[in-house]
Amino acid sequence: MSFNTFGKIFRFTTWGESHGPAIGCIVDGCPPNISLSEKDIQIDMNRRRPGKSKFTSQRKEADQVKILSGIFEGKTTGTPISMIIYNQDSKSRDYESIKDKFRPGHADYTYFLKYGIRDYRGGGRQSARETASRVAAGAIARIVLEKLIGKKFKVTGAVIQLGILGCNKKNWNQKKIRKNPFFCPDKKSIKLWEKYLLAVRKAGSSCGAVIELRAAGVPVGLGAPIYSKLDSDIASALMSINAVKGVNIGAGMNSAFLSGETNSDEIRKISNNTKFKSNNAGGILGGISSGQDIIASFAVKPTSSILNLRETINKKGKNTKISVKGRHDPCVGIRAVPIGEAMMCCVLLDHYLMNRGQCG
Amino acid sequence: MSFNTFGKIFRFTTWGESHGPAIGCIVDGCPPNISLSEKDIQIDMNRRRPGKSKFTSQRKEADQVKILSGIFEGKTTGTPISMIIYNQDSKSRDYESIKDKFRPGHADYTYFLKYGIRDYRGGGRQSARETASRVAAGAIARIVLEKLIGKKFKVTGAVIQLGILGCNKKNWNQKKIRKNPFFCPDKKSIKLWEKYLLAVRKAGSSCGAVIELRAAGVPVGLGAPIYSKLDSDIASALMSINAVKGVNIGAGMNSAFLSGETNSDEIRKISNNTKFKSNNAGGILGGISSGQDIIASFAVKPTSSILNLRETINKKGKNTKISVKGRHDPCVGIRAVPIGEAMMCCVLLDHYLMNRGQCG
Amino acid sequence: MSFNTFGKIFRFTTWGESHGPAIGCIVDGCPPNISLSEKDIQIDMNRRRPGKSKFTSQRKEADQVKILSGIFEGKTTGTPISMIIYNQDSKSRDYESIKDKFRPGHADYTYFLKYGIRDYRGGGRQSARETASRVAAGAIARIVLEKLIGKKFKVTGAVIQLGILGCNKKNWNQKKIRKNPFFCPDKKSIKLWEKYLLAVRKAGSSCGAVIELRAAGVPVGLGAPIYSKLDSDIASALMSINAVKGVNIGAGMNSAFLSGETNSDEIRKISNNTKFKSNNAGGILGGISSGQDIIASFAVKPTSSILNLRETINKKGKNTKISVKGRHDPCVGIRAVPIGEAMMCCVLLDHYLMNRGQCG
Amino acid sequence: MSFNTFGKIFRFTTWGESHGPAIGCIVDGCPPNISLSEKDIQIDMNRRRPGKSKFTSQRKEADQVKILSGIFEGKTTGTPISMIIYNQDSKSRDYESIKDKFRPGHADYTYFLKYGIRDYRGGGRQSARETASRVAAGAIARIVLEKLIGKKFKVTGAVIQLGILGCNKKNWNQKKIRKNPFFCPDKKSIKLWEKYLLAVRKAGSSCGAVIELRAAGVPVGLGAPIYSKLDSDIASALMSINAVKGVNIGAGMNSAFLSGETNSDEIRKISNNTKFKSNNAGGILGGISSGQDIIASFAVKPTSSILNLRETINKKGKNTKISVKGRHDPCVGIRAVPIGEAMMCCVLLDHYLMNRGQCG
Repeated sequence: MSFNTFGKIFRFTTWGESHGPAIGCIVDGCPPNISLSEKDIQIDMNRRRPGKSKFTSQRKEADQVKILSGIFEGKTTGTPISMIIYNQDSKSRDYESIKDKFRPGHADYTYFLKYGIRDYRGGGRQSARETASRVAAGAIARIVLEKLIGKKFKVTGAVIQLGILGCNKKNWNQKKIRKNPFFCPDKKSIKLWEKYLLAVRKAGSSCGAVIELRAAGVPVGLGAPIYSKLDSDIASALMSINAVKGVNIGAGMNSAFLSGETNSDEIRKISNNTKFKSNNAGGILGGISSGQDIIASFAVKPTSSILNLRETINKKGKNTKISVKGRHDPCVGIRAVPIGEAMMCCVLLDHYLMNRGQCG
Repeated sequence: MSFNTFGKIFRFTTWGESHGPAIGCIVDGCPPNISLSEKDIQIDMNRRRPGKSKFTSQRKEADQVKILSGIFEGKTTGTPISMIIYNQDSKSRDYESIKDKFRPGHADYTYFLKYGIRDYRGGGRQSARETASRVAAGAIARIVLEKLIGKKFKVTGAVIQLGILGCNKKNWNQKKIRKNPFFCPDKKSIKLWEKYLLAVRKAGSSCGAVIELRAAGVPVGLGAPIYSKLDSDIASALMSINAVKGVNIGAGMNSAFLSGETNSDEIRKISNNTKFKSNNAGGILGGISSGQDIIASFAVKPTSSILNLRETINKKGKNTKISVKGRHDPCVGIRAVPIGEAMMCCVLLDHYLMNRGQCG
Repeated sequence: MSFNTFGKIFRFTTWGESHGPAIGCIVDGCPPNISLSEKDIQIDMNRRRPGKSKFTSQRKEADQVKILSGIFEGKTTGTPISMIIYNQDSKSRDYESIKDKFRPGHADYTYFLKYGIRDYRGGGRQSARETASRVAAGAIARIVLEKLIGKKFKVTGAVIQLGILGCNKKNWNQKKIRKNPFFCPDKKSIKLWEKYLLAVRKAGSSCGAVIELRAAGVPVGLGAPIYSKLDSDIASALMSINAVKGVNIGAGMNSAFLSGETNSDEIRKISNNTKFKSNNAGGILGGISSGQDIIASFAVKPTSSILNLRETINKKGKNTKISVKGRHDPCVGIRAVPIGEAMMCCVLLDHYLMNRGQCG
Repeated sequence: MSFNTFGKIFRFTTWGESHGPAIGCIVDGCPPNISLSEKDIQIDMNRRRPGKSKFTSQRKEADQVKILSGIFEGKTTGTPISMIIYNQDSKSRDYESIKDKFRPGHADYTYFLKYGIRDYRGGGRQSARETASRVAAGAIARIVLEKLIGKKFKVTGAVIQLGILGCNKKNWNQKKIRKNPFFCPDKKSIKLWEKYLLAVRKAGSSCGAVIELRAAGVPVGLGAPIYSKLDSDIASALMSINAVKGVNIGAGMNSAFLSGETNSDEIRKISNNTKFKSNNAGGILGGISSGQDIIASFAVKPTSSILNLRETINKKGKNTKISVKGRHDPCVGIRAVPIGEAMMCCVLLDHYLMNRGQCG
């Protein structure tokens, strides 16, 4: 049972509400003797930070991580690393008018019925603000894996579908991804995406997205049958991100349409290296990493907080209407990229340590 | 860490290899005083059983469940329920010729590299034979939920896509699903599917499938933020089934294409009942059940064991070719229906008990 | 795996080092809608606080708990409660001179060999300062149980042995326990204990203690076979407290000397109430609470940090000697009373919630 | 939550009732490529087996372990090892007369109130028969540790107190322990113990015992702060054994009486080896193994099933009397020796694997 804890050996626990004084994260099980500083973690934090472009929420948060424990003389000690991020720009007044209404597509209704109480300010605990804590944990996982495996280990995410617009994966340009506000890997799509998203925002609407994650340099053997399969844990991790409704590993849902010949990846030995002729498996066979790139994608639904008027009920069970004002991302999927990367890094480090324990 | 155990309060542990003397399952955390017999469990077992039609593997297994503990005078006692299923028709000789080769699309390569040893007979532990144990556990979960919630609780799965052939969901006929060998909900599709699958088999090939699960009668409030979300646990459960590569909740991957207005389900109070005007959320908001039907779908890749010759390597790292003979399902997706139902039932009961503990 | 997390449904995770900026605790799985304030928690905190009498460490810590999340309008919301306690009076300089030596009886040697690094300042993570976080978690558990069970629920601890001096349990006076600096239940022993402990301190030495915990008002049925027995979890909880080396349930180690007739508690129905004629079982039969008072006792070894010179080795493996200066409790056992109470409350609430989930 | 499962990486789950068809155990997380046979396991099983001498229960059980999975060509594969032990000599009729009465000192009363149902035959699940499964798991743990650490690894238990009779630990003779029916380490005590126990049995009574466990060859670094301390896990493991009421690590409860100087073990470097001048810590400092022998002892209460008449109530809440006939051990503590060894081996292997995962 671990409502707010993720992981088995490398574990993190997050806490905090959108409009509380702070949010934070405890990382437990981090290997000792790894160089680690707040600055290292901040690099990943800045990729998720709101208010950076006109395409994301205008809430201004420095999202500065402060480490409170677990580091001694610049190195991890193997004891829990406590990190805190102060909330600086929460505007609770924006939520006064809707505090008794259940926003469609949000967890307002289910939280209230489950707990009989909820912090309505900015969604409270259900807010995607919680994901800042995950990015902090993921940054640590990434740094540890780069130390344990080497620099060939690399996890990158990209938006491959923005609402109704795809991109051409043949134009994939790794270096461009983090240099445009959409994490788009195809330079040629950026302009169109920009126009489209501005139109969506202007219309008081929102759109969804598909994010693809690639993990390179992952050793063979991570993952464990039957219920700790690597893909099973990745699916769980990605589906735990706010607004995610679908997860694919490799060919994913499309594998249903393939024949056995097309789908299963043939294996070759080429100058002493094992090579697969394709990667429909997404780098995972029987729940265990094969040494190929791990490839996973996930769909983020359109932001539920929109200006356009919608039907709903209130706490007393009366029919009413709602228009959600405030500062919202027209496409929350964009900011899901660093979150997806973070979750992937955490799952991989966890399985790396588990495998070391299990198989030595 | 629970390699072969699934669940938190309602937990099951499976064991056994495809060609060992038996396989089995321990169900722990089952509530006491529930009437339960081997006969009750057998109903679900029979739906998964191989050799029932010409569209599934011809391996003949009675899959008769024997209960060894946890039941007293016809009722559960709250202590672990141990179930055993003897393997009766394993033909290990079929695997002699390929014991040193890694079958593409299978876990042969990854198991061998991870463990340095593997039981090659019928895939050993990686065989889908393990899923018989899950169906036994799921049958118990189903019976318990029917007792706790009432008969309105119902979980059914159907194949909605067979390889390249879809079906018309508008023709959905609940009663027909379990009366055709494909678990197809659309009577009009059955004939075509039959022809198609026979052709696939005759060609020595295989095809994938998409299965949709529906759970009706699930109370509001199951699921828990943040890392024990109901959808997160369903995704993990379904992705742990052999050959599954993608999981959707509600609108799933398609939600990326929708606008905020179309996607988020509006809420209405109609004659004192809460009604949603659509169900893109698949019955889950913020990881917690909303009282709507839970809807999840998942893709099963085409059977990797095919007659057609494929390239691979052997244990010594030499290039070679392989043709997998033996008795294989041309579409393993069909038999995934009762397995998906079983996993759904287990997740729901687990969260039912957790919610009872947590929120009283 | 949960190095720094305790519990199953009601879970807490602690973090922080003795001489870091702060320590803290995340409580997860707390039931919703319970009135809770920092003030409520502070009552228990003050019982553990150092510097209150001349018989404990002179380190001055206000040990003021600040709640950062999980409370809304004065009530728990079911989301994680993050608490922080700032370190105010750490004097790291005291430890400079011994930073390369391993203090006998402390974890200096084992931490260093396990992790290859350790925060030597005040013992770092191995310091009993961590237990302040436990008391905060325990205070919440106590409040929740009082709400769920009623005021008849009561956990109290007392020192029943101070070094070589026992007390007369026949003089047990519940009300006196928290009114003397030794948590001694026998008024007549206090004076002698005072003299004894002053002499111990003056001699630059230290002594151990035995603490007895009593939990009244615990309902029948808490605990679960086989490996989640209530006594098994209590033993684990108490043995996890710094310096604890022995745990008894009921008659404990003495039960070895009793005959079957003397030991097993006979049962009587008296005016419709179930009564036991004795309580050698300590209120637990087969790992499950019987409705009698839960009684557990534990031994705390003498403080290892003493002035008197001792032999040891340093980080380089050279033989050396050590005298530990600084501000140390002559008997850490005294301050273990509120910690023991806290752990008992956490175990009981955890099992209360588990039982509710399991048996409805 | 793991009612019937023990361990974190090396995990075992037991099932079965005293008078059911069989009992059994699933071992999960066992490292691969370890030679293992039923014969190896049987050695430990035979030490616990009833009916071997006139000093234990006359129930005749071969306690023959049958392995059903997880072994391939004589070696572990890393997949779950399922073991089954058939019950052969259960005499349920013995229990007919007392099926509605709650035996004092047993879990009859608490099981019935918790679950509302119980298998009264031989105590059902609460029977110490369950411990046969633990011995099977422990035998595997022992074999794995001998492979991983080498033959210097050795866990042995001995009865050091039989009821009111102690033994002289100065006469400790390791080789004699397993050659007398009492697991007594002091040859000179055996005769007296024999007379005493025969008298106890003849009187229709029973007595308790204290067992001491010693683990030699344990590497430094096993155990983890704060709530996975090695001693905390040992305490939990031993307290989970039927009838155990007290657990000591090293000096244990006696450490309360010692001074800081006497208690804390001084450290010396002698010809490049780290040596401790005493072992009051029982080989564990701050929850982590120090390389010294791990020493733990535990008290087993006298058998509650005695012939002599006792007062109790029945299921209807009426006062009544009971005399428990059948075949009972006059001192269950004796047969607790191999069970204690088994639990110790399991805890140590679990921590060995955890430490490998955590610290590489």
